[in-house]
Amino acid sequence: MEKAGTFSVLARDGAARRGRLVTAHGVVETPIFMPVGTQGTVKAVGPDDLHDIGARIILGNTYHLYIRPGDELVARRGGLHRFAAWDKPILTDSGGFQVFSLSALRKISEEGVEFASHLDGSRHFFSPEKVVSIQKNLGSDIMMVLDECPAYGVDREYTKKSLDMTTRWALRCREAYPQGSGDQLLFAIVQGGFFADLRAESAAQLTPHPFDGFAIGGLSVGEDKALMLEMMRHTAPLLPEDKPRYLMGVGTPLDILRGIAAGIDMFDCVLPTRNARTGTLFTSQGKVNIRRAQYKEDDSPLDPACACYTCRTFTKAYLRHLLVAQELLAYRLNTIHNLAFFLDLAAGARKAIEEGSFAPFMAGYEAIYDD
Amino acid sequence: MEKAGTFSVLARDGAARRGRLVTAHGVVETPIFMPVGTQGTVKAVGPDDLHDIGARIILGNTYHLYIRPGDELVARRGGLHRFAAWDKPILTDSGGFQVFSLSALRKISEEGVEFASHLDGSRHFFSPEKVVSIQKNLGSDIMMVLDECPAYGVDREYTKKSLDMTTRWALRCREAYPQGSGDQLLFAIVQGGFFADLRAESAAQLTPHPFDGFAIGGLSVGEDKALMLEMMRHTAPLLPEDKPRYLMGVGTPLDILRGIAAGIDMFDCVLPTRNARTGTLFTSQGKVNIRRAQYKEDDSPLDPACACYTCRTFTKAYLRHLLVAQELLAYRLNTIHNLAFFLDLAAGARKAIEEGSFAPFMAGYEAIYDD
Repeated sequence: MEKAGTFSVLARDGAARRGRLVTAHGVVETPIFMPVGTQGTVKAVGPDDLHDIGARIILGNTYHLYIRPGDELVARRGGLHRFAAWDKPILTDSGGFQVFSLSALRKISEEGVEFASHLDGSRHFFSPEKVVSIQKNLGSDIMMVLDECPAYGVDREYTKKSLDMTTRWALRCREAYPQGSGDQLLFAIVQGGFFADLRAESAAQLTPHPFDGFAIGGLSVGEDKALMLEMMRHTAPLLPEDKPRYLMGVGTPLDILRGIAAGIDMFDCVLPTRNARTGTLFTSQGKVNIRRAQYKEDDSPLDPACACYTCRTFTKAYLRHLLVAQELLAYRLNTIHNLAFFLDLAAGARKAIEEGSFAPFMAGYEAIYDD
Repeated sequence: MEKAGTFSVLARDGAARRGRLVTAHGVVETPIFMPVGTQGTVKAVGPDDLHDIGARIILGNTYHLYIRPGDELVARRGGLHRFAAWDKPILTDSGGFQVFSLSALRKISEEGVEFASHLDGSRHFFSPEKVVSIQKNLGSDIMMVLDECPAYGVDREYTKKSLDMTTRWALRCREAYPQGSGDQLLFAIVQGGFFADLRAESAAQLTPHPFDGFAIGGLSVGEDKALMLEMMRHTAPLLPEDKPRYLMGVGTPLDILRGIAAGIDMFDCVLPTRNARTGTLFTSQGKVNIRRAQYKEDDSPLDPACACYTCRTFTKAYLRHLLVAQELLAYRLNTIHNLAFFLDLAAGARKAIEEGSFAPFMAGYEAIYDD
């Protein structure tokens, strides 16, 4: 068994990389899309469904699992893998993003962040050391450092102070879990808001240190797509060549392809799962809003190019009926398909990079999708 | 291929029967429990899940499917089997029960029943001929006649008039779809409320006619369990020996065993699916309310005697977490298990009857369950 953390770039096509990351629960082939499993389950699907569509690594959410059912309870169950019956890799975020987006009454200090639970308002405190301890309890394959994720539109001065503190927090996380002290990996998070020079400064502060991978945070908060892409393209090449790069919380199929083109290896986003539950489905022929009356009598599969259970088995007419009738099966079938689409996108990208045909591969999606 | 409607009793143990009913979509081994698929899906599970737990025949609901998506739309899709991707037998009820329980503004006449849609209040009319036409459109293997299902506590005079009309409606259904005119079967429904002599009269009126099976209706409405059982035990032996007998909408595991002991062959009930969604789970060790705090750290399977996906894969602690966190996966996993329990109950009963050990088999459940 190879050592957890080993990352190799197997092929390149422009800046796009075809890689391989070893974790304690198996190898992750990159570029990869990681379905989001906030509360210890990817919403609406089971591990059986995830296996069927070839999911290789899923996310767990530190904030949510800490609040409920509690990381110590999960640890007593043998960790998140055993608790959730998922034997493949898991990445846990640091909880920072949720603390800053879900919890109104937060108080940030050098020591960490105090916040109120979104469930019962009870007060809690996350320090860098605490989120490492929680993630150790969860037993994830990849842990993320605690970072401050400033809101969109925050000024330069605040952003600069914030990224400096995020660096200090990252180093405290690394200290709390020195590289090689176990088989969990720890990724740092580059911040710096929407200021190119601050992004560069954050990367310069973090990359000399022995993290197992580097993430770009804070780019899923904005509304300005062009600016987000500019920051992403600016930041990606500032990250080490020999470590995995992870763009947090982004995005649409095209965003993911743009990220891959910029040299990003790992992606997560609630878009496919959340959109599935409202009926916006991604297909090889574009987006389908399955609620629309035009699908009432449509006996074709959702996506003829897709091999998922939903597309192999059901018609658009039936999927529309299920969603309109608010049947629970709708959420599962739609989620299976949307995740299959995002996983197929990543698998197609891996193959295209190997074959040196990533640009035409991406152009195929640009011909169908426009955001 | 044997002729649809062929019913053979393979073994007996007391009044309990081990039978075999041929339908256009395959053989149904009886006694059988039929999961309820109101709107063209058994709530929270897919056909894949139903296959896995060995479901052999499911219910569809004439009223709901007529209202949405519409029986004619389903017919244009090739019928309910193709629409819902379920290739095994389907029984459709007549819609009568829903019209009488869901629709406040109903007007009953000899011709049929006028009612308001529970969705938009639009006015509709079900006649015996109409519900046969709807069920022909749905293409179910077993159709039910339109019956009036009087509310609990209705007086003798009303009940007598009602059962007489139910008989006339049943004969109009048979006339609209003469036996042998297609491979769909048609079952009549014995009514008569909670009056033993009226039950006998209803049975006497209906059983001379060429129906493919006989159901006992109107026994899922009461609150008096002893009276329900008395009526069931009184009515079952009044039904022909050589036709399948179906107790509609009943009930608990013990009720089903009591029905089997009385010579009933077929059962349906929303109990396992509805209870699954609120966390009341049936196990070989009794009922489990999975929300209870006592299961917070319980790493044992829900039911060690059960081989379903839920019990093979997850712990009580995880199932509790999913339900408390209102995760959609909870509904699927709980439903898979509860249905597996009811299907195993029926399978166990079949084996016990074959082996002449039905009484001790039933006693085993009586030792665990008390209603």
